[in-house]
Amino acid sequence: MANLNGATSDLRTKFLEVYSVLKSELLNDPAFEWTDNSRQWVERMLDYNVPGGKLNRGLSVIDSYELLKEGKELTEEEVFLASALGWCIEWLQAYFLVLDDIMDNSHTRRGQPCWFRVPKVGLIAANDGIILRNHIPRILKKHFREKPYYVDLLDLFNEVEFQTASGQMIDLITTIEGEKDLSKYSLPLHRRIVQYKTAYYSFYIPVACALLMANENLDDHIDVKNILIDMGIYFQVQDDYLDCFGDPERIGKIGTDIEDFKCSWLVVKALELCNEEQKKILFEHYGKEDPADVAKIKALYNDINLQGVFAEYESKSYEKLISSIEAQPSKAVQAVLKSFLGKIYKRQK
Amino acid sequence: MANLNGATSDLRTKFLEVYSVLKSELLNDPAFEWTDNSRQWVERMLDYNVPGGKLNRGLSVIDSYELLKEGKELTEEEVFLASALGWCIEWLQAYFLVLDDIMDNSHTRRGQPCWFRVPKVGLIAANDGIILRNHIPRILKKHFREKPYYVDLLDLFNEVEFQTASGQMIDLITTIEGEKDLSKYSLPLHRRIVQYKTAYYSFYIPVACALLMANENLDDHIDVKNILIDMGIYFQVQDDYLDCFGDPERIGKIGTDIEDFKCSWLVVKALELCNEEQKKILFEHYGKEDPADVAKIKALYNDINLQGVFAEYESKSYEKLISSIEAQPSKAVQAVLKSFLGKIYKRQK
Repeated sequence: MANLNGATSDLRTKFLEVYSVLKSELLNDPAFEWTDNSRQWVERMLDYNVPGGKLNRGLSVIDSYELLKEGKELTEEEVFLASALGWCIEWLQAYFLVLDDIMDNSHTRRGQPCWFRVPKVGLIAANDGIILRNHIPRILKKHFREKPYYVDLLDLFNEVEFQTASGQMIDLITTIEGEKDLSKYSLPLHRRIVQYKTAYYSFYIPVACALLMANENLDDHIDVKNILIDMGIYFQVQDDYLDCFGDPERIGKIGTDIEDFKCSWLVVKALELCNEEQKKILFEHYGKEDPADVAKIKALYNDINLQGVFAEYESKSYEKLISSIEAQPSKAVQAVLKSFLGKIYKRQK
Repeated sequence: MANLNGATSDLRTKFLEVYSVLKSELLNDPAFEWTDNSRQWVERMLDYNVPGGKLNRGLSVIDSYELLKEGKELTEEEVFLASALGWCIEWLQAYFLVLDDIMDNSHTRRGQPCWFRVPKVGLIAANDGIILRNHIPRILKKHFREKPYYVDLLDLFNEVEFQTASGQMIDLITTIEGEKDLSKYSLPLHRRIVQYKTAYYSFYIPVACALLMANENLDDHIDVKNILIDMGIYFQVQDDYLDCFGDPERIGKIGTDIEDFKCSWLVVKALELCNEEQKKILFEHYGKEDPADVAKIKALYNDINLQGVFAEYESKSYEKLISSIEAQPSKAVQAVLKSFLGKIYKRQK
C-alpha cells in the first residue's frame, strides 16, 4: 500500500519505539519457556518481517484515533495503546506476507529475499507465520485485557483474519495452475477477491481499532465499514492500474500482473469492453512471459482506452465516496474517512 | 494419540452429528460472500482433514464435562456445546497437521495422502490450514458469544495455540537440515518440546474447556494444568517407546524415529546412560536410513536395557501422577484426571 500516510517522522519514531517495547515483551512472554536459540530466532524473524514496510496501516490507527478525539491532545498512554493496535495490524500483515510468499513461490519482498528463502529458514517460515499471528492475541491480552472493549478487539481481529484468508482462498482457487481460464474473470469476482483479501485488513481494521479505543460500538458504524470497504476496492483498482500504467520509478517496482495472469481490474474491464476479435487477443496473449505477448495486451488496453475508462471510474468513485462520507452524522468520523480518502485520491504511487 | 478414549459408539455418533451442524454453519457463514466453488472447496477440505482421526481429544471434552457434573445427566444443549468445544480442538489439530505435513514434506496422514499432496491442492493447503484455524473463533462466536466464559475460551485457545506453535518452533530449529547434531539433544530439551508441542493441546485444553463450561475459573486450577502437562509428557514418552519397541500391528505404523533423527526420549536416555564407546555408536549410526544402522542403534538400546529403564519410568510416573491427583480437593476433578490416566497407563497402542 503506497504512501497512504503522510505522518510526520516524529510520530513514526514514536511508533517504532513501541515496536521495541512490544518485541521485548514477546521475547520474554512467560507463557513459553525460552531457550537462547528460540529467543534469537524469534527476534531475527520479527526484525526481518514486521517493521520493514511503509507502516501505513499501523500509523493510521493513531491518526484516526486523534481525529476521533477532535483535537484533544492524546495522553502518552493513548499514544502507546493506539500504536500497539497499529502494530497488531502490522503483525497481521507480516503473517499474511510470509505465508503468501511461500504459496506464491515469490523471490523478493520489500527489497530483500522472502523470509522462506533466507538460508536455514525454508519451510520453518510457515511456522514463523503462525508465530507472528499468535503474537497478536499476546499483545492484546497484555495491554487490553482489562479494557471494556477487549472482547470486541478479539472478535474484530478474528473476523478480519477470517475474511482475509477467505479472500485469499478465492484468489488461489480461481488461479490454480493448469486451469488458467480467463473466462472465469469478471468484475464481481474481482470485487470479491479485493474486498475480502485486502480491504478489511488494510482499510477497515485500522479505523475499527480506533473506534473501539474511543469506546464506540462497531455495530453502530456499519456505514463506516461499508465506506472503508469501498475505499479499499477503489485503492486496489488504482493498484491494478498503476501496475500497468504507473511510473516504475515512482511505484518502486515493475508491474507483472499481465505476465502473472492476475485477475486485475484492467483485464476484467477489457473483457467487458472488447469485441470478439479483441477477446481472442486477450485469451491468446494474457498470462505469458514473453514481452511480445505483454506488448499485445498493452496495445489492446490502449485501443479500448482503458486509461480513460479508469479516469472516469476514479472520479465517479471519488464523488460517490464523498457523498457517502458527508452523509455520516459525526463530523469526527467524516474527518477520519476524508483523511483516508485524501491520501489515496489520484495517487501516482 | 492412540486409543485415549473408550467412548461408546453412541457418543461418537452424536459427536459426528455435531460436526455436520458446525460444518453447515461454517459453509453459510455470513461474514463471507460464498461462491459455489469456494463452498465446495471448503467442504471437501473439511471432510478430508477434520473428522478422520481418532477424535480422542474432542470426545474427552464431553467425558470430562460429564464427570465434572458428577453423574447429573447432561441436557441436549450441554452435549451440543461440549461437542462443539471438542470439535474446536479437532479443528485445531487438523490445522496443525495440515501445516506440519507441509513443513515435514510428509507423504501420508491417517492412511491417505497428506492434503497438500492431493492434486490441485499443493500449497493452497497452507491457506487451508489458516482457514481451519479461523473456523475456531467462528464456532466459538456463534455458540458461546453470550456465555460468561466466552472471553476465557478465546484466551484459552489463543494461549494454547501460541504454546503449540512455540513448541513446534524449538523442534524445528533444533533439527534444521544440515545441522543434525546429537549433542544438542537432552532430557530438558525433550521435555520442553513435548510439553509445548503436544501436551497443552492434547491434554490440557480438553479439560480446560470442560472446566470453563462448568463455570470454573482456570486460575483456580493451576495444579490441574500441571498434572495434565505431566500426563502429556508421560504420554509422549510412551509414544517414543512404542515407536521402537511397540508392536507395529497394534500401533498401526512402523516407527521411524531412529531413521528420522528424532529427539526421542529413547535417544536422550541412551545419551545419558551410555559409556564413551556406546556414545560413538550413537553418533555414528543415529539418523541413518540404512537398516544396518538402525539395527546397531536398537542393539545398543538393548545393551543398556532401555526397556527396563522405561518400565521404571512408567511406574514412577504413574505413582507420582496418582499422588498429585489424590491431593486435589475436588472429587469430580480427581475423577476427570484419573479417567485420563486410566486410558493411557501401560497402553500398548
